[in-house]
Amino acid sequence: MTGPELRVAMIGHAFMGAAHSHGWRTAPHVFDLPLRPVMAVLCGRSVSQASADRLGWASVASSWQEVVVRDDIDLIDICVPGYLHEPVAIAALAAGKHVLCEKPLANTLAEARLMAAAASSAASAGGVRAGGVRTMVGFNYRRVPAIARARALIAQGGIGQVREVRASYLQDWLADPAAPWTWRMSAEQAGSGALGDIGSHIIDLAQYLTGSQVSAVSAVSETFVPERPGGRVTVDDTVMFTAKLANGALGSFEASRVATGRKNGLSIELYGTKGSLAFDLERLNELQVSGQRVLITEPGDPYLDAWWPPGHALGWDATFVHQVRDLVHGIAEGSDTAPTFADGLGVQQVLDAVARSAAHQSVWTPVDRTGVERTGVGKTGS
Amino acid sequence: MTGPELRVAMIGHAFMGAAHSHGWRTAPHVFDLPLRPVMAVLCGRSVSQASADRLGWASVASSWQEVVVRDDIDLIDICVPGYLHEPVAIAALAAGKHVLCEKPLANTLAEARLMAAAASSAASAGGVRAGGVRTMVGFNYRRVPAIARARALIAQGGIGQVREVRASYLQDWLADPAAPWTWRMSAEQAGSGALGDIGSHIIDLAQYLTGSQVSAVSAVSETFVPERPGGRVTVDDTVMFTAKLANGALGSFEASRVATGRKNGLSIELYGTKGSLAFDLERLNELQVSGQRVLITEPGDPYLDAWWPPGHALGWDATFVHQVRDLVHGIAEGSDTAPTFADGLGVQQVLDAVARSAAHQSVWTPVDRTGVERTGVGKTGS
Amino acid sequence: MTGPELRVAMIGHAFMGAAHSHGWRTAPHVFDLPLRPVMAVLCGRSVSQASADRLGWASVASSWQEVVVRDDIDLIDICVPGYLHEPVAIAALAAGKHVLCEKPLANTLAEARLMAAAASSAASAGGVRAGGVRTMVGFNYRRVPAIARARALIAQGGIGQVREVRASYLQDWLADPAAPWTWRMSAEQAGSGALGDIGSHIIDLAQYLTGSQVSAVSAVSETFVPERPGGRVTVDDTVMFTAKLANGALGSFEASRVATGRKNGLSIELYGTKGSLAFDLERLNELQVSGQRVLITEPGDPYLDAWWPPGHALGWDATFVHQVRDLVHGIAEGSDTAPTFADGLGVQQVLDAVARSAAHQSVWTPVDRTGVERTGVGKTGS
Amino acid sequence: MTGPELRVAMIGHAFMGAAHSHGWRTAPHVFDLPLRPVMAVLCGRSVSQASADRLGWASVASSWQEVVVRDDIDLIDICVPGYLHEPVAIAALAAGKHVLCEKPLANTLAEARLMAAAASSAASAGGVRAGGVRTMVGFNYRRVPAIARARALIAQGGIGQVREVRASYLQDWLADPAAPWTWRMSAEQAGSGALGDIGSHIIDLAQYLTGSQVSAVSAVSETFVPERPGGRVTVDDTVMFTAKLANGALGSFEASRVATGRKNGLSIELYGTKGSLAFDLERLNELQVSGQRVLITEPGDPYLDAWWPPGHALGWDATFVHQVRDLVHGIAEGSDTAPTFADGLGVQQVLDAVARSAAHQSVWTPVDRTGVERTGVGKTGS
Repeated sequence: MTGPELRVAMIGHAFMGAAHSHGWRTAPHVFDLPLRPVMAVLCGRSVSQASADRLGWASVASSWQEVVVRDDIDLIDICVPGYLHEPVAIAALAAGKHVLCEKPLANTLAEARLMAAAASSAASAGGVRAGGVRTMVGFNYRRVPAIARARALIAQGGIGQVREVRASYLQDWLADPAAPWTWRMSAEQAGSGALGDIGSHIIDLAQYLTGSQVSAVSAVSETFVPERPGGRVTVDDTVMFTAKLANGALGSFEASRVATGRKNGLSIELYGTKGSLAFDLERLNELQVSGQRVLITEPGDPYLDAWWPPGHALGWDATFVHQVRDLVHGIAEGSDTAPTFADGLGVQQVLDAVARSAAHQSVWTPVDRTGVERTGVGKTGS
Repeated sequence: MTGPELRVAMIGHAFMGAAHSHGWRTAPHVFDLPLRPVMAVLCGRSVSQASADRLGWASVASSWQEVVVRDDIDLIDICVPGYLHEPVAIAALAAGKHVLCEKPLANTLAEARLMAAAASSAASAGGVRAGGVRTMVGFNYRRVPAIARARALIAQGGIGQVREVRASYLQDWLADPAAPWTWRMSAEQAGSGALGDIGSHIIDLAQYLTGSQVSAVSAVSETFVPERPGGRVTVDDTVMFTAKLANGALGSFEASRVATGRKNGLSIELYGTKGSLAFDLERLNELQVSGQRVLITEPGDPYLDAWWPPGHALGWDATFVHQVRDLVHGIAEGSDTAPTFADGLGVQQVLDAVARSAAHQSVWTPVDRTGVERTGVGKTGS
Repeated sequence: MTGPELRVAMIGHAFMGAAHSHGWRTAPHVFDLPLRPVMAVLCGRSVSQASADRLGWASVASSWQEVVVRDDIDLIDICVPGYLHEPVAIAALAAGKHVLCEKPLANTLAEARLMAAAASSAASAGGVRAGGVRTMVGFNYRRVPAIARARALIAQGGIGQVREVRASYLQDWLADPAAPWTWRMSAEQAGSGALGDIGSHIIDLAQYLTGSQVSAVSAVSETFVPERPGGRVTVDDTVMFTAKLANGALGSFEASRVATGRKNGLSIELYGTKGSLAFDLERLNELQVSGQRVLITEPGDPYLDAWWPPGHALGWDATFVHQVRDLVHGIAEGSDTAPTFADGLGVQQVLDAVARSAAHQSVWTPVDRTGVERTGVGKTGS
Repeated sequence: MTGPELRVAMIGHAFMGAAHSHGWRTAPHVFDLPLRPVMAVLCGRSVSQASADRLGWASVASSWQEVVVRDDIDLIDICVPGYLHEPVAIAALAAGKHVLCEKPLANTLAEARLMAAAASSAASAGGVRAGGVRTMVGFNYRRVPAIARARALIAQGGIGQVREVRASYLQDWLADPAAPWTWRMSAEQAGSGALGDIGSHIIDLAQYLTGSQVSAVSAVSETFVPERPGGRVTVDDTVMFTAKLANGALGSFEASRVATGRKNGLSIELYGTKGSLAFDLERLNELQVSGQRVLITEPGDPYLDAWWPPGHALGWDATFVHQVRDLVHGIAEGSDTAPTFADGLGVQQVLDAVARSAAHQSVWTPVDRTGVERTGVGKTGS
């Protein structure tokens, strides 16, 4: 709780805003951080101080344009709908602020490219911040201890060369046609549906865990409920695609918001030449290693050790606490913490290829990898 | 153990021959059967009487051509490699024998069409067998009590309209490149690799459980180990495909023999408008109903009731016992027991489309449904 | 299927008779046996040949007194209610027959002592049978591959010195007070209730797996439903007891027939100085080793290897097949196959101590170990 | 974050201090609380402000005697070793402070009686606090949503009359004889070992879930490792006991710190006349209802609704957040929140009977229920 301050402003304050706030509030009380985060400003068009108090922010503001240029702010945390990611991030980077942006990076590949380019420029701009400007995308599942363990196992060759990736992210909050329309069902505001919202998570995990990029995809998508109370649905409810990775592996992916009975079911399995790994978010303190269940509880884990004695299960919310820990370390040490905007672009390129394949009879579609070079696919802060 | 005899000859005596023998031996001791199966002849090129004794067959023969025309045989059970299915079955049907054929029905779509046509002719030929000639394909997983229960639940509308099917069949016996070559790795003898051998099971289950046919597919396949001790591998190790079903559902399918750590992992999930079902062969006495685990143990099950009091788990082998039960009932009652050869053709048509899509950049490929009409996709003997 | 015959007569033909018949019928078709079992006679007061056919027996008889002395019978398999175990077994042993007796060995400690003494005399009597007369008690769960694996692990020191045993066997077929009275609810005919019927299984497993005997117990029991349609219940519905083992371990045991929702739930956990093991019959192809789940599927298992390729799950019924295999090997090789009658007496002594402690305010009650010496607690046929 | 302040001082700052701090810090940001907790003082013999900052406390103090009488403090949160519970609580109650005390209530029955009597006097003393002085014991597992759900189901008669309770709490941090001695291994400082530390949790859960008190017990305990680096162990490593509840149910209980491979394994099963419930802390977002697994994720839960959308799993730490929520509501509303000190005494009475039975040959030992009347066994804040 000592060290220089890191003054944070958060733009947006809905579900993800609450989760990010939990991370900012809790991280300094669980981990030794080299900087002291200050929850300075909560920004929303009509946000009240009561709401800010509830989430733990010291003050409120209504104009993000004004907040991102304030001298007393070091970091902008973006939790607004996807169509606003690009303008807010570009402005914040231009003002020399560190940026943490919710996933997926943007609504379109074009926006993501601009954001990654801006991040790249800002990083090398030097200027007042000794360590450079840092960016991060909120793919929080990298921070589940079991996932971090899985990445380490694979990087050490523990399962050999990965041949197959099998991933799904299944929810059911739109299974009922009576579930009302929100901005998440609008292509303009959200970019895509299940694909970008939750499919992006499993793409990121696949690339992170294997340390290899998706090179081509074949996809199909469906909008099972095209009309909902309140509006027309212009995004997918479900998307399925197969993929080839640069290392030669095949991948099978599915994301759905109409998978009745699955509340928040993220599952990923990796089969290699020497072994396999499987993870299921419903049992996030476990890992299946070559078919056997392993509880992730042993000492030596950089996340778990800071919390409680072995065997005391963490929840979903802990990933946001870990995310803050890793980002703050990176900023203090002057190094990137993956996933950076470049990594976010790496996911966005896949999303774009998936959408194009789905629009063209599922034909194999190479992922367009032009743009800023990816920098940290296999790197994590822990 | 009374009633007219049903005299059986089995062609082939390897793994599947042992499993079928277990079915023939055990069914009359567990179920009340209207006919009395007699395990009359075991046929193999050089099979010994000792082997026949071990499996429970009264005599041996070396020429299937001679066996299929013997007057003292009523039913031919085909357990030989795929390339022999067609000649044996055609000859047996021509001789007026009932035929039980291991899956997949054939190595090629052309063969399967011939077989289904022959079955159709034989069925309507009349002749000496009052009830007509019956055919069945050995998709034994339809006979897992939990699967039969799932089918009944879906047929009653228990999960509403199915929107998504998610199926995989993962094994690892070929994960090691040192695993030796066998006929199952030859396109000539086996038709395809993981696709036909185990992929056919999940295609059949998807069509059976939904009561709807796959109408188009987009597929990719890979041979990760193209050379093995003893020969060149000319079939796939892994295949992944997406599918559209006639009822509008999307499907995601994967079959692999190189999924390290999975011994015999068949999993199928169905998501409908009102609920969901999930089954995993590793826990074959359970069913997940809308996310909750249900043990399949309650009284009232036509299979389970005949075995033991509730709670005494059955194994994989019981499916072959149930298969015999259902087939014998069908023969005695003069009715088809699904899956018939027509249903087997219905699966083969999908296998063919998958192979064509995989060979053409994964482009959407309609399933060619010409040929004999399907008769029993949604029907089971129980 | 070659080798000398082993001619078997079974006394009794209800649930356990069906299970034993399955074992006798199937074992010769799965395993290489040194003797050829012949299912010669099924004996019951009014059993029909149709029933015998159904279970696989060649002929019927109505008097066990006559059957046990027949010259054409080598082995008597006792599947009658507990109160008949002693007279049938004593007579069979006196006639020089091998005896397989369902568990528990007897209704009372006095009967069990007589039986073990008779077995001991018969074993050393020599006479016409070269290998001596053999006895076995049907504690079939020793023959679950996962249990056999657990025993081997413990014997090799894999979990160190066992400190705690935690075992329960929970069923619910008597949870409903409307469930009718049967002989199993009569102290005269069944000896005890949950205690002897299913508690005996977990006592046997505890002694077998640890290789150590229970030395003292403290127990409580309850009859929750004292009257049922058809009669008065004179045995326990539920029994709980703690125990000390000779090796210093503590044990916690529970057996119940009124544990609603549990059909056949046998669970045993062993905690040692170096590791732990846990087994649950509902998932009988798995073992928990020091908290991690292990599927029992790898090659090298003497039971599993004879059945199918890895990953094809066995059911509860397989234990009876394995039991026949092990017994037949023992007879052919002239050696005892645990659990012998002496081992059965070792369990009965615990049952007796439990009943006495429950009748005396749960006070610690030493197990009376007088009688024939135990011979094979830690030995199995595989 | 509005409303009157509730100024808190915490005595002690080790493992439980960190957990309680997490609760105080987080509850106001997740729940609407009628009072605004202020984390005013952290008290420890030599605690630094840096430590206080880390846990979230505004200031430090070194003398609990001084803190408990401070005018600017409303509530004392006791997280010190057991032997200090009584003097701190008595002094705090005498000073008219609300008290939250870690479990078990005390080291001895005599201390617990004094504390409950003091709580009773303070409650009725009236005086400056309009709502009266409130006490609570930190049996935090009552605040797992699945446990709260289980209590509601049982109270509504969902499983009928409970007949059997089966509970265990297994850890392994003392399995290794090389694990060093701490105050928790001293009878003087901790009262007992596994019995009080973790056995108290399952006793409380059993009484809470059934709504019935334990009336008599039969117990055995063992110290497997009597000497450790740093001192002599004068408490139990493992305790097992059977119990009778006032409603006629039988109970089986086990607590151990040497159960190798179990990190924090709390399991409780309840079998009733109409159904059953089972809970396992390793999967704390699930409940087994009559043998079927139910994910606790549906809307309508007073705890879960305040956190995240359905399906986002909570961790162990959330129980401390819920504890603060319920306690603060009780204080504001002038009502007790179970478990009060009287309920804590109700557990202590069982601990005492267990120890006496273990010291007297496990003989049935009635629980001495003299002392303050229990007030809230079946009541919870949610």
